Amino acid sequence: MTKGRVEAFSDGVIAILITIMVLELKVPHEPTLESLRPLLPIFLGYLLSFLYLGIYWNNHHHLFQAAKHANGAVMWANLHLLFWLSLVPFATTWVGENPAASAPTAIYGVLLLGTAIAYMIMQATLVRAQGNDQTLQRALGSDFKGKLSPLLYVLGIGSSFVAPWLGQLFYVSVALIWLVPDRRIERELIHRKSDLS
Amino acid sequence: MTKGRVEAFSDGVIAILITIMVLELKVPHEPTLESLRPLLPIFLGYLLSFLYLGIYWNNHHHLFQAAKHANGAVMWANLHLLFWLSLVPFATTWVGENPAASAPTAIYGVLLLGTAIAYMIMQATLVRAQGNDQTLQRALGSDFKGKLSPLLYVLGIGSSFVAPWLGQLFYVSVALIWLVPDRRIERELIHRKSDLS
Amino acid sequence: MTKGRVEAFSDGVIAILITIMVLELKVPHEPTLESLRPLLPIFLGYLLSFLYLGIYWNNHHHLFQAAKHANGAVMWANLHLLFWLSLVPFATTWVGENPAASAPTAIYGVLLLGTAIAYMIMQATLVRAQGNDQTLQRALGSDFKGKLSPLLYVLGIGSSFVAPWLGQLFYVSVALIWLVPDRRIERELIHRKSDLS
Amino acid sequence: MTKGRVEAFSDGVIAILITIMVLELKVPHEPTLESLRPLLPIFLGYLLSFLYLGIYWNNHHHLFQAAKHANGAVMWANLHLLFWLSLVPFATTWVGENPAASAPTAIYGVLLLGTAIAYMIMQATLVRAQGNDQTLQRALGSDFKGKLSPLLYVLGIGSSFVAPWLGQLFYVSVALIWLVPDRRIERELIHRKSDLS
Repeated sequence: MTKGRVEAFSDGVIAILITIMVLELKVPHEPTLESLRPLLPIFLGYLLSFLYLGIYWNNHHHLFQAAKHANGAVMWANLHLLFWLSLVPFATTWVGENPAASAPTAIYGVLLLGTAIAYMIMQATLVRAQGNDQTLQRALGSDFKGKLSPLLYVLGIGSSFVAPWLGQLFYVSVALIWLVPDRRIERELIHRKSDLS
Repeated sequence: MTKGRVEAFSDGVIAILITIMVLELKVPHEPTLESLRPLLPIFLGYLLSFLYLGIYWNNHHHLFQAAKHANGAVMWANLHLLFWLSLVPFATTWVGENPAASAPTAIYGVLLLGTAIAYMIMQATLVRAQGNDQTLQRALGSDFKGKLSPLLYVLGIGSSFVAPWLGQLFYVSVALIWLVPDRRIERELIHRKSDLS
Repeated sequence: MTKGRVEAFSDGVIAILITIMVLELKVPHEPTLESLRPLLPIFLGYLLSFLYLGIYWNNHHHLFQAAKHANGAVMWANLHLLFWLSLVPFATTWVGENPAASAPTAIYGVLLLGTAIAYMIMQATLVRAQGNDQTLQRALGSDFKGKLSPLLYVLGIGSSFVAPWLGQLFYVSVALIWLVPDRRIERELIHRKSDLS
Repeated sequence: MTKGRVEAFSDGVIAILITIMVLELKVPHEPTLESLRPLLPIFLGYLLSFLYLGIYWNNHHHLFQAAKHANGAVMWANLHLLFWLSLVPFATTWVGENPAASAPTAIYGVLLLGTAIAYMIMQATLVRAQGNDQTLQRALGSDFKGKLSPLLYVLGIGSSFVAPWLGQLFYVSVALIWLVPDRRIERELIHRKSDLS
């Protein structure tokens, strides 16, 4: 029951964050196709952040699908994750308006890093909440992507002060790595079922 | 379970998009009935986009009602659909502020076309996710409306550069075609039930 | 299943409308208590519209609780209701900014009237969707409040052109009439249960 | 059934309130790290209000988890709570923009006080709705925190007129007291289960 409400609440927050970002795509004053061009960096920023929110929503779903229990600690660890996610639209707009500046790109990376760490904490809290049931733990496996991402974010943040586009390239790369959905858990669940039959 | 969360998330995003659009109906400075007149094109644009979002919500529901399974691929195909839908408010405002200009009307059509294609991809992904179960496939039948709409959008986009009102007429026509809800699936489900009894 | 999704979608839209209205309570420039005074009419408008949205949410819930089936026609009748509700924040802001003007007060009433009519249509559509099951029909009874409200809205709209405060008084009165929740349906459901036992 | 819809609706409103507040974090004009500094008080205000909304969501969930029934009175008591919560973003922005002024800090406390009282009313209404079932009543125990908080809010409101930072300190303290989640109910439910086995 707690599990269901955590999922529903997270769905709600992520759905709102996704649609709030699009409000920053301000309609141009001139009704011409050329006037759309200055919107391009803001649009690309929206696209990248949409991907990130989609990835988190996807992984969040797979994670909770493999979990049987949730408790108060999971609720707070999840709120902590949502807090970091809620700051993404801010950084998205800032970097979209200043794609060639270092500070916004670095801050965007700091938020991605904070979100990634919050996700790891939440995942660990959820695993602990399962008690002796090891399905989730086993499904997560080595969590290679989860460990690689923070490293790439740190490299991206550092690169931002050398060349913003390099930092942005790091963030795009991590998104692409994750776009392949987290099939580990799906596989494990199917595996479990065939064990039972 | 995945199916339920995809439905809930889509409901959330579509509900937010619908209400975000209404924020563009800015209160007039003068408290007179005449001062509402300049809002008319924006209101009509809101009405049309509300209809489109309602149509997509309706068809989305009927589609998933006939489906038994969803997987990671469906989740991403659905996010892709939501991405296109999320851009509709932007184009709605732009066309509402410039109803007599070509570019906004054309862009509105491009977004409708992108949304329609994303829906077709999602539908195909969902059919594939059903494996050997053919209920959904059969329920969809020839999908005549689904194939006609993109053609009409393309004609609408082209017409926008001749006369914006002609392009808008195409978009209104497609909405009217779809307003008749997608009864195919309801019929098929009832049919199935009577087969079983 | 259709019923559940109509309820969830309506909850989403109403929840967003309620919170969107509060965005019109713009923070005053001066950090003093006196600077809150000009916000009073906007606050009162928010309070009244919050009540109306709460009433609709409440009655919507009770209505669907007594229903067993929903279909495509109910989905569209419900979207039609949500369309009218979605315009309430617009009129709320307008009347809040111009509490002594006729046009905004009249338009507010027109929207309340439209919403009430849309609710009646939706209710009738839902009753029809129940087929031979008369629980919902019986639970609704004479629907006295539902028939009185449109009349009072019309009187309110007319009065707005004589004295806006008189029109507003009508709208407040209807809200107070409805604040007593729609116990008819609760009563009928309890009645039914005791019949069965 | 009523219970489930009250929970879903509350989740929706709280999720939207949380994300609406973040819209007040306006992107700075300069793309430099120093330009983020003036945002700090607004950010801290957001953080505090996020915590409060998280606490209410958490306690709301635990409360309803222990409840078996809800009725029309609970629905209205809950809407009353949501009304007070919906005003929190307004006060958050005001205090964030004027952290050294008395009035915004006092108003923030008034809203926290109103919310706390609304929660107490809702809790009592929910307990009454359980009839003879005493699980919820017993789970709530002495409700020490619930009784302490309003007192601290009153002290905070008073202190605001002496020194705003002192009032703010009171509000932060209450949040910290509540951050320890309401384990009473979880404990009681576990207790009950072991009684049954």
